[in-house]
Amino acid sequence: MTLTGPAPTGLTGSPDRSRLLDVLARRQPGRSLPGECYTDEALHRLDLDLLWSRQWVFVGSVAEVPEAGDYLTVDIGSVSVMVLRDDDEQVAAFRNVCRHRGARLVDETHGSVGNIVCGYHRWTYGTDGRLLHAPQLAPGTDLSCLGLRKVALRVVGGLVFVCLAADPPGDIDDVAALVEPYLAPHALERTKVAAQVDLVEDGNWKLTMENNRECYHCDGHPELLCTFFPTWGLEEHQVPARLRPAHDRYLLAETDLELACEQRGIPFRAVEDLVDRPVGFRVQREALDGAGESFSRDGSRLVGRLLGDLDEPRLGRATFHAQPNVWAHFLADHVVTFAVLPVAVDRTLVRTTWLVHEDAQEGVDYDVEALTEVWKHTNEQDAAFVGLTQRGVSDPTYEPGPYTEPERQVDAFVTWYVDRMREEAGR
Amino acid sequence: MTLTGPAPTGLTGSPDRSRLLDVLARRQPGRSLPGECYTDEALHRLDLDLLWSRQWVFVGSVAEVPEAGDYLTVDIGSVSVMVLRDDDEQVAAFRNVCRHRGARLVDETHGSVGNIVCGYHRWTYGTDGRLLHAPQLAPGTDLSCLGLRKVALRVVGGLVFVCLAADPPGDIDDVAALVEPYLAPHALERTKVAAQVDLVEDGNWKLTMENNRECYHCDGHPELLCTFFPTWGLEEHQVPARLRPAHDRYLLAETDLELACEQRGIPFRAVEDLVDRPVGFRVQREALDGAGESFSRDGSRLVGRLLGDLDEPRLGRATFHAQPNVWAHFLADHVVTFAVLPVAVDRTLVRTTWLVHEDAQEGVDYDVEALTEVWKHTNEQDAAFVGLTQRGVSDPTYEPGPYTEPERQVDAFVTWYVDRMREEAGR
Amino acid sequence: MTLTGPAPTGLTGSPDRSRLLDVLARRQPGRSLPGECYTDEALHRLDLDLLWSRQWVFVGSVAEVPEAGDYLTVDIGSVSVMVLRDDDEQVAAFRNVCRHRGARLVDETHGSVGNIVCGYHRWTYGTDGRLLHAPQLAPGTDLSCLGLRKVALRVVGGLVFVCLAADPPGDIDDVAALVEPYLAPHALERTKVAAQVDLVEDGNWKLTMENNRECYHCDGHPELLCTFFPTWGLEEHQVPARLRPAHDRYLLAETDLELACEQRGIPFRAVEDLVDRPVGFRVQREALDGAGESFSRDGSRLVGRLLGDLDEPRLGRATFHAQPNVWAHFLADHVVTFAVLPVAVDRTLVRTTWLVHEDAQEGVDYDVEALTEVWKHTNEQDAAFVGLTQRGVSDPTYEPGPYTEPERQVDAFVTWYVDRMREEAGR
Repeated sequence: MTLTGPAPTGLTGSPDRSRLLDVLARRQPGRSLPGECYTDEALHRLDLDLLWSRQWVFVGSVAEVPEAGDYLTVDIGSVSVMVLRDDDEQVAAFRNVCRHRGARLVDETHGSVGNIVCGYHRWTYGTDGRLLHAPQLAPGTDLSCLGLRKVALRVVGGLVFVCLAADPPGDIDDVAALVEPYLAPHALERTKVAAQVDLVEDGNWKLTMENNRECYHCDGHPELLCTFFPTWGLEEHQVPARLRPAHDRYLLAETDLELACEQRGIPFRAVEDLVDRPVGFRVQREALDGAGESFSRDGSRLVGRLLGDLDEPRLGRATFHAQPNVWAHFLADHVVTFAVLPVAVDRTLVRTTWLVHEDAQEGVDYDVEALTEVWKHTNEQDAAFVGLTQRGVSDPTYEPGPYTEPERQVDAFVTWYVDRMREEAGR
Repeated sequence: MTLTGPAPTGLTGSPDRSRLLDVLARRQPGRSLPGECYTDEALHRLDLDLLWSRQWVFVGSVAEVPEAGDYLTVDIGSVSVMVLRDDDEQVAAFRNVCRHRGARLVDETHGSVGNIVCGYHRWTYGTDGRLLHAPQLAPGTDLSCLGLRKVALRVVGGLVFVCLAADPPGDIDDVAALVEPYLAPHALERTKVAAQVDLVEDGNWKLTMENNRECYHCDGHPELLCTFFPTWGLEEHQVPARLRPAHDRYLLAETDLELACEQRGIPFRAVEDLVDRPVGFRVQREALDGAGESFSRDGSRLVGRLLGDLDEPRLGRATFHAQPNVWAHFLADHVVTFAVLPVAVDRTLVRTTWLVHEDAQEGVDYDVEALTEVWKHTNEQDAAFVGLTQRGVSDPTYEPGPYTEPERQVDAFVTWYVDRMREEAGR
Repeated sequence: MTLTGPAPTGLTGSPDRSRLLDVLARRQPGRSLPGECYTDEALHRLDLDLLWSRQWVFVGSVAEVPEAGDYLTVDIGSVSVMVLRDDDEQVAAFRNVCRHRGARLVDETHGSVGNIVCGYHRWTYGTDGRLLHAPQLAPGTDLSCLGLRKVALRVVGGLVFVCLAADPPGDIDDVAALVEPYLAPHALERTKVAAQVDLVEDGNWKLTMENNRECYHCDGHPELLCTFFPTWGLEEHQVPARLRPAHDRYLLAETDLELACEQRGIPFRAVEDLVDRPVGFRVQREALDGAGESFSRDGSRLVGRLLGDLDEPRLGRATFHAQPNVWAHFLADHVVTFAVLPVAVDRTLVRTTWLVHEDAQEGVDYDVEALTEVWKHTNEQDAAFVGLTQRGVSDPTYEPGPYTEPERQVDAFVTWYVDRMREEAGR
């Protein structure tokens, strides 16, 4: 299999790269990025060329392509990627571009095909990407040179990552080994999509990621706070007196959860390597407030049928985060994944997907409105925060302020971003 | 008459031109253009500056300005051109810009004026462009220096072409001599507009032109295929067995048509010079399927009154194509013209105009819905193809694939484009 | 108080500045600006960086922030400015940007706050801009370095000007001394907002200003011409015969007005310094046609309660104009202010505000529809003129034509613009 990296584009030559390095040099530890990183068109093209085209990008889960011929598509900048389950039931990815005159092959976010037939001139490809038929092609043309361009793909615990580069970062195997034990009990391969919502936020993708990396703003999420402990992200000494009762409840719930996990051989403690590797990640199981089962108003389960072979609904949430673009919560009764995809320098798509056991029946085992309520509201609240921040950092005199301790992971994300961009700009 | 070419613009200096030449050098014969040619803003500005501002551009027909004072306007990039029938019944063209403070003079696509009066400060020009009156202008100002700027204009068989350059390509006279015998029997000067539809396609103008230059995709045009022979564009040896009956029908219809043309002294065979001259063109008369008369579901005529002095409805279509931006079909009962005009790097206006005999009565001799049905559907189908292609070629790894034999004229168009751009970039 | 100027931006380096100087060098006295000045994105960024970020900009009046805690916001390019009446009843201005992660603090054009609380993470500032509270900020952080960034502000006769530069032009004090005697009798500080309308014109901000500086186009303003004398802007020798009766009426009204002003110690004659200073301005009291009191169909007053301590409704209009972005009419019964704010190279916000005595009662003393009718129509007519001009000057062959004598102030504005841009580009 030959993978093809992006061609050099005339738009992103050395003047923009030196400017990028100058801007990154102005970033101070413990503070956010200079405003240009969120607002400048040329720097955004470098984000696409140097980061999104070279890192592993989350695109969805195996549950979105359950049968042979099922596909999903995502846009990474101007690149459309088609993720397809082939006739051998393997999941693979291709550039969604006909090898003839370049028409996009499929135009929906999800669908199903027998072969992949270009709508323009009927060039026909197998689900393995081989060109099977092209009408009236000159005799002697070597069809084997005209197969769809493959895109590197790796499944981690049912989550699908692709990489547009010819030489994807190799450490995803190490990350998979560390993360899969946390995700495996939820058996993503035996789930189905209960709901999917696309929300476009009016801000740069990094603001969306930074927003997600702290709960310092969680006063703005009343629905989420029904089950998120209000002391999330605080060190022991940081807990204010008014939150002491909630924190004691949290400590007790954590003890209970640890025991339940030990009894079932499910890993529990945080594993994190956010800065020093291409696939910056974090995974941990944490207790939820209230009944401790799911993202409902009282914390009780939202789906009657539990995932995989789980026998206990009160397992909190295993939360997985990977850079540049995913976080996901794995609960006993459902999984919710979030894919962050850049649309423009100041617009970002957040695709949220709720997954339930493949045998769960809508209307019997779960109600879609109830299942999706908390995160729909939370996403909209976050979109408003991101929009306000995008507009504020556009002021040319904006100077990043200091992070507080609850923003430790934001700092880690920003540091990871700066390191990756420096590495890639220097290649 | 002094014609004025475009001023040099600071935006399109030598770095962009060298990049253009680099990109054009990557084009391989028999394949489409590199993706940047369709997606890059700076290259699009060079299309406007080096091609659209220097070649002859189709803007409409004499039938759209039937009376003295009637005008039409088209936008060629940021330039609005006003085509006007003057008080001597001659058709002329002007920049649609007041010589005072630059207000656009007329703001509709079609209209009628006595004099041309700027709405801002009432500066008043004759239909010959001379400044007749400007209130309170300083005494002694030489009005003769403040007439409207003329634009070169040439009528070919009733089709109106303009050229924004001061030194328009001279070969349009040769082309006119070759083409007019095909168009003259349809007497465009004795037609009227029955309908006009503006459609904006979400793709670069070159994709719109390439789409039109082949019927390799005509399976996607069910309405058009009622009268387009399905073997259009195929050489004898390329006709597949399943299309043999249709092809035999085609050969018979061609023989019939040739005879009918000979009897009436109407030229029939293809004349084509698509690559080697500024006004790349092709003209030919071809049979239609079914009744062979018009673009209807069964091929029978759509307008009772035939054009000019024609006495025979079954005359197929004389098809005229000229680069960069026009194709038109001349039938016994009507003419349909297509003007392609760039709106943005990824948006293109297609203006379709149906013309019938000036004495034909709507509701009696023709029905507008029936007259326009086939090409309305066909245009929308083509717009979808163009949109898919625009999005696909935006992938930076897109490499143009090989043209097939039915795409010979697409190859010719692209070669013409490359040659013209190289010539103009080197001036 | 430390004021902070805009950071240098990588986008507006020396190539754009030399191009600007080249374009400005092409401007001929007595003619408008070259077309690029209105249409070129890079030159527009220089307008923002070199002019809007360095000159005094009108943002509204003290009547828009009547109580402590009341604020208004305006966008100057990508900069949002918050104008606030503080707890000591002083009006001050801040960058509308949180010092933490840059969120915009307030998102409405008008509102009221106790403290200024960032919606994102609850950082809380006093109305004096000091950071009062930031949850969980690292111990020892110096809050005094994290106050809101102040913006220079100056009130002139109740009109509020801000300057984004650290070293605002000092001549505003001289201008204030000259202008305030004209405005003071109208007592803006004792008015309230009766109506405010935002209109976005599809043209460059300079076209909006140029349009306002002449009545050569006033034939296009039928409502305004009820009270604007049709010979406005004409020298005695320029009055055409057909306008002689109107001009005689004008001369008589001026004599009456001068007398009424002298009796009350209100200044009357024009004071103007449009070109040679940073705060180019003009102020004058002029008679109105008809009843001579207000902008109504017959010239009679629109508000029963007169402004300040005025005892006479027939006082014409004191008209104040300052560059780059304001004009305002002060009548006996109301004031109407116009703020011009650039939105994009080809889009401009005109915010019109009608102010009446703070004790005037809607429905009793005035009717909002009647009060706003003339200028609503006039603004819409002007927006159409500006839109037509924007599209016309986009033609690269547009060459500015000669101004007529009634366009003297347009010439002055353009000359002021060229001088300011040259000064600033050379700093």
